[in-house]
Amino acid sequence: MNTYDTVMKLALERGFYFPSCEIYGDAHAGFWEYGPTGTNMKNKFIELWRRELLRRDDMIEIDGSQIMSKSVFIASGHLDNFTDPVIKCKNCGATFRADKYIAEKSGKEIPELLSGNEIDKIVEEYNLRCPTCKGTFLESSRFNMMFKVEIGPSKEEAYLRPETCQSIFVDFPRIFKTMRGRLPLAVAQVGKSFRNEIAPRQSLLRLREFYQAEIEVFCNPNRLNDLSKFEQVKDTSLKLFIKNSYHTICAEDAVREGYLPNKLVAYYLSLLTLFYSKTGIIMERTRFRQLSDEEKAFYASTAFDFEVETSVGWLELVACNYRSDYDLKKHSMISKQNLNVIDPSDNAKVLPHLFELSMGIDRSIYSILEHSYYEDIEAKRVVLRLVPPIAPILIGVLPLVTKDGLREKAQDIYSKLKLDYSTFYDESGSIGRRYRRLEEIGAPFALTIDNQTMKDDTVTIRYRDTMLQERVKVSEVSNFLDEIVELK
Amino acid sequence: MNTYDTVMKLALERGFYFPSCEIYGDAHAGFWEYGPTGTNMKNKFIELWRRELLRRDDMIEIDGSQIMSKSVFIASGHLDNFTDPVIKCKNCGATFRADKYIAEKSGKEIPELLSGNEIDKIVEEYNLRCPTCKGTFLESSRFNMMFKVEIGPSKEEAYLRPETCQSIFVDFPRIFKTMRGRLPLAVAQVGKSFRNEIAPRQSLLRLREFYQAEIEVFCNPNRLNDLSKFEQVKDTSLKLFIKNSYHTICAEDAVREGYLPNKLVAYYLSLLTLFYSKTGIIMERTRFRQLSDEEKAFYASTAFDFEVETSVGWLELVACNYRSDYDLKKHSMISKQNLNVIDPSDNAKVLPHLFELSMGIDRSIYSILEHSYYEDIEAKRVVLRLVPPIAPILIGVLPLVTKDGLREKAQDIYSKLKLDYSTFYDESGSIGRRYRRLEEIGAPFALTIDNQTMKDDTVTIRYRDTMLQERVKVSEVSNFLDEIVELK
Repeated sequence: MNTYDTVMKLALERGFYFPSCEIYGDAHAGFWEYGPTGTNMKNKFIELWRRELLRRDDMIEIDGSQIMSKSVFIASGHLDNFTDPVIKCKNCGATFRADKYIAEKSGKEIPELLSGNEIDKIVEEYNLRCPTCKGTFLESSRFNMMFKVEIGPSKEEAYLRPETCQSIFVDFPRIFKTMRGRLPLAVAQVGKSFRNEIAPRQSLLRLREFYQAEIEVFCNPNRLNDLSKFEQVKDTSLKLFIKNSYHTICAEDAVREGYLPNKLVAYYLSLLTLFYSKTGIIMERTRFRQLSDEEKAFYASTAFDFEVETSVGWLELVACNYRSDYDLKKHSMISKQNLNVIDPSDNAKVLPHLFELSMGIDRSIYSILEHSYYEDIEAKRVVLRLVPPIAPILIGVLPLVTKDGLREKAQDIYSKLKLDYSTFYDESGSIGRRYRRLEEIGAPFALTIDNQTMKDDTVTIRYRDTMLQERVKVSEVSNFLDEIVELK
Repeated sequence: MNTYDTVMKLALERGFYFPSCEIYGDAHAGFWEYGPTGTNMKNKFIELWRRELLRRDDMIEIDGSQIMSKSVFIASGHLDNFTDPVIKCKNCGATFRADKYIAEKSGKEIPELLSGNEIDKIVEEYNLRCPTCKGTFLESSRFNMMFKVEIGPSKEEAYLRPETCQSIFVDFPRIFKTMRGRLPLAVAQVGKSFRNEIAPRQSLLRLREFYQAEIEVFCNPNRLNDLSKFEQVKDTSLKLFIKNSYHTICAEDAVREGYLPNKLVAYYLSLLTLFYSKTGIIMERTRFRQLSDEEKAFYASTAFDFEVETSVGWLELVACNYRSDYDLKKHSMISKQNLNVIDPSDNAKVLPHLFELSMGIDRSIYSILEHSYYEDIEAKRVVLRLVPPIAPILIGVLPLVTKDGLREKAQDIYSKLKLDYSTFYDESGSIGRRYRRLEEIGAPFALTIDNQTMKDDTVTIRYRDTMLQERVKVSEVSNFLDEIVELK
């Protein structure tokens, strides 16, 4: 079994994630649920994101509606351009994403932005047919990937947002004013986004409904190197992948040598590196890949993808784009609102530019699971080596046996820990089996209550990875966990 | 200005909440955003819910898709029955919710479940006309309040969930199996739900997109009094409002005297009471109102609404329903899956019954704001008396002046606190004005760095409500906050 399938099996069996509506025949591809362990892990990942990016950098967070009005997507360009080319069978109506299908059948690499004419020409040239019924294809068309909804009895047109950042742009004037904003101002949002993918696949990796955590840094384009906080991160080692070569270089040198355009960009790539290094992702298997001119949006002067190497290839976890004034200019134009602000540093009116860190949470969760998965052949066990801050269960509480008052003692300890830490009580099966279950969901510690506990109020703490145990006083367990987790 | 408007003004000006897409003319009613302070407060409310209900009661949490397949809502009955009666003007097409409109114009109290014929009769009898153009109305119809979406190029029909609990029901078989479930098993979910209201109103009080936090307790109907943990809450004082009279009574007596049907129901109403008493809701202004037979769903044998008194009347914050086996029976029937489980307590196969606590988060947030709002006439200040665990900002860090190294000292203290606590740094304006700003967003504490700080490393902590100050060592601030907040 390859690693992707192994992780999937574990995810299904241990409550990390599983298909949505799975008891029904009309369940749709591209929709998945986080089970109990997955929900805990995903929530903790978000809390770590809040701590290491938002609070560390004094960002502010908003939480906007997922359904947004049509004008927003006229301005953003999604209504016109957020489309995939599709070809539909004349005979049976089956529909395929044109570029993928052509690439697969013709063996040709097909650029995403091919025109309809060009697609039709290739379909004809290769005499492509429907794989189901061998029918010929209708002329190709474009399929918009936004989900439309109708509001109220008058059926006004609105859309589920395809990215969370649009609320940040639209809400900017009020936020800047009420929060007494100053540039650069970073505004973040975490929540669901929706894309009507033609061919969703690979569970959490290409979903139709997915979690994004986006950060938009509103900045003055004339002051991108005027950033005193850059000092704090200037020594951070960044692994840049530019035009097929790797440069592992500290943030300060990356700016000096022109790999990165300015301190602001280098600062946020550094923060992102520090964040991921605390999630359990193996940093040696990550890189910032600079997008080629063909790949990046026309308005993006700088575009790096933070990528991680997995068994299914390099995955994009975070798109880091310098979006210039594209977004605010378009929203200003369509809404007819003046979105300029005053930057007191140079007392100039400025339409802020944007640098964004657009993070996919579901893919991050998958990547962490894969990087943490470890088959300990010698000890015949499977271990998820999750770091304490994002482990779904931090500590298991296990009475060695249930008699002689050990159950009651264990339950007492459990009830004192469970409000403040993700704690799991387990008394069923042999102690070895109970360790295995905890290891498989990545619990870093297990507390065992044994006969000695009854005598001197000490318990053993067992470390998941080393399997070593140490004895501590019951009254010291909280302190032990606080120090390990470093998270209040 | 009435209290509702006062709170609204504060919410708009201080970043609690504001209308979605407000820079656009086609913004739709019923969609609101949480601003920076509101997002913090809402997130902390959810964390408190997790602590005081989920972790305290060993519940498990899932996070499912918001878009669900059609079969789910065939089974749940929403596709057929989740409708409001509407009347549409023959002339201009304006549409109104029939029962509300008739009630308003005729002065008659109109039951929600009036048939179409009955509505048409009343419209004719009272000669009701369109308020806009005076046109007559077409025959009344039913408007389904679910938002439909189309999946993929083949446009398969699916719906945005109108309540979060449906994923809990549908996911039950996998959850019960993989989590080694035992009845009673409480499964929770927090997230967005969507209802295409005909007339959304009053900001957070009737939204088209809103946050729910739902708990579904799967239980064996034959063992509803077999609940040893009931002992822990039996003395909780519950305020029941049954057939127009109040009974303030402890949980144990409420069961004994037949006000509540069993220990399981009494246990969860007690937990809910304990939870809300920690949110800052004034508990004297709450009640559990028993629904009348006309109000409650036909399958609900017990139905209480947890209500809170506000300036706009009694608001339902939590629907507490004993739903019997209605949900699993329907899902079992439509999916053709056997959803029975074994209860080892009596070794019987059982289709679990459900008791639910269905909480509206947005209304809870509004109610807490209103109950916390306080105009301190004497001190000429507005204070939000939010409790520490849900205050958007826990502590402000304020250098008395920016010179003599006070700014640097304050920033140093700030940077040490901000990762673990919601901290706000403010150096602009007089110290009095800065206190006012913190009070208005409910920050319980302000830390002032003054000249003495430079000498002996102490700061003053100012209490928001009493305005008293005490001097503490900088190194003691974390401990002080930990003890106050009681939340790790």
